Amino acid sequence: MAVIQYAPDVELIPTKSMRKIITLVEEEKIEQGILPIENSTEGAVTEVMDLLIKTKKSKIQREIILPVRHNLLSTGDDISKLKYILSHPQALEQTREYFIKNYPGIELIPTESTSRACEIVKQKGEEYAAIANEWAAKNNGLKILDKNIQDNFYNQTRFLIIGRNHEKPTGKDKTSIAFSFHNDFPGSLYMVLKEFAEREVNLTRIESRPAKSEMGKYIFYIDFIGHIEDNHVKEILENVEKITNRFKIFGSYPMGKIE
Amino acid sequence: MAVIQYAPDVELIPTKSMRKIITLVEEEKIEQGILPIENSTEGAVTEVMDLLIKTKKSKIQREIILPVRHNLLSTGDDISKLKYILSHPQALEQTREYFIKNYPGIELIPTESTSRACEIVKQKGEEYAAIANEWAAKNNGLKILDKNIQDNFYNQTRFLIIGRNHEKPTGKDKTSIAFSFHNDFPGSLYMVLKEFAEREVNLTRIESRPAKSEMGKYIFYIDFIGHIEDNHVKEILENVEKITNRFKIFGSYPMGKIE
Repeated sequence: MAVIQYAPDVELIPTKSMRKIITLVEEEKIEQGILPIENSTEGAVTEVMDLLIKTKKSKIQREIILPVRHNLLSTGDDISKLKYILSHPQALEQTREYFIKNYPGIELIPTESTSRACEIVKQKGEEYAAIANEWAAKNNGLKILDKNIQDNFYNQTRFLIIGRNHEKPTGKDKTSIAFSFHNDFPGSLYMVLKEFAEREVNLTRIESRPAKSEMGKYIFYIDFIGHIEDNHVKEILENVEKITNRFKIFGSYPMGKIE
Repeated sequence: MAVIQYAPDVELIPTKSMRKIITLVEEEKIEQGILPIENSTEGAVTEVMDLLIKTKKSKIQREIILPVRHNLLSTGDDISKLKYILSHPQALEQTREYFIKNYPGIELIPTESTSRACEIVKQKGEEYAAIANEWAAKNNGLKILDKNIQDNFYNQTRFLIIGRNHEKPTGKDKTSIAFSFHNDFPGSLYMVLKEFAEREVNLTRIESRPAKSEMGKYIFYIDFIGHIEDNHVKEILENVEKITNRFKIFGSYPMGKIE
């Protein structure tokens, strides 16, 4: 769904893992890849963060923020006949209040994916419904009995498009970087944040991931407003590079709107 | 194993979830609970972080840092007879290089837990071995064929002991806090870190978790050296409380050594 928002006409190639997506971009076998990077409820997708730090050619070219929308899908169109609701445990969890309030007698059954839930519902008939997105309804020929049944209306997932070229400034851009320090940080992180604060540059995200050597060693990931071609951003990054050990720029890209 | 290090003679009560451990402490049904909070390879245990922010009475009373040690366990004592190695996927992943290097022909089979691997190995005999810790060897009556077979010798897990009382200062203490900001952070996090940096107080950990409202809203978790009864720590915390929205002190506790 994120890709359809971004580029409705591109050819889509499915892969079996996040790692594979990045490998295909790095090996120049695909032009761009799309990866989830964070969810407003679950937090960072740590696997993707750990993969991005190892890339050589990949640049972040776009961010896409998509609200998580759950719908009730079935073969029939009579909600009163429903006895069983199937979906991935996370979707069941995210619609629990809706069912307790509206259909307390209904049985919730976990499946390995939302697609699998749709398949079963298609076979089993009108006592069964799946929780899935609109695309799944269309794809499986199911009817939408109720829309936007998620308990938290702010649940959003942020995706990144990666490719191999730097994006030109648009005037409304974000930049993503990562860095670690030589030693433990007495005031090291403070020194980095000072560079941003003194130039009134807003951070939109800060995360830490273990450096995987020993406890207490971290790699920091920062997203901020601005483009690497902006003069004040150049200044910040030059100074940050001096006070850090590993330092990596993932790229500058247009700020995403919530679709 | 972490509890045995900390208090070898306490009564151990197993629970089915992390949430249950915290509930039992909050309802005063157990004196103390133990929870993993971070691993030097995998990062934060986000479930525990999200549970801790909701506690009312619980205080962190101790930290225990335990190296992750994998051993090769079997009923026999002849490594050359081994054909199959069983363990939890994470343990298999963490010993992969060891097997590629030393026993390239051996088949690695994932099981749902290291305990389950030990049970199967007990039944199947000397062609089978499990990857598990020393305690599992003793508990299952298995022989240790090889010790410390983990690829990464720095892999450590940090555990927290929670209870209901504040711990007195020992002179070598850590304090854990969490906070969020009213608005997005232009320089808010910088302002907080400034309080620590100006008093030369070392941070040992900084993590962010989503506030679960919308993308870009975070709760920050900081661990630092010092005790809440120290005057300079009192000053810092008073100032931090003023510039933050939600503010929570999890407790002060003796710094853990690596066992």
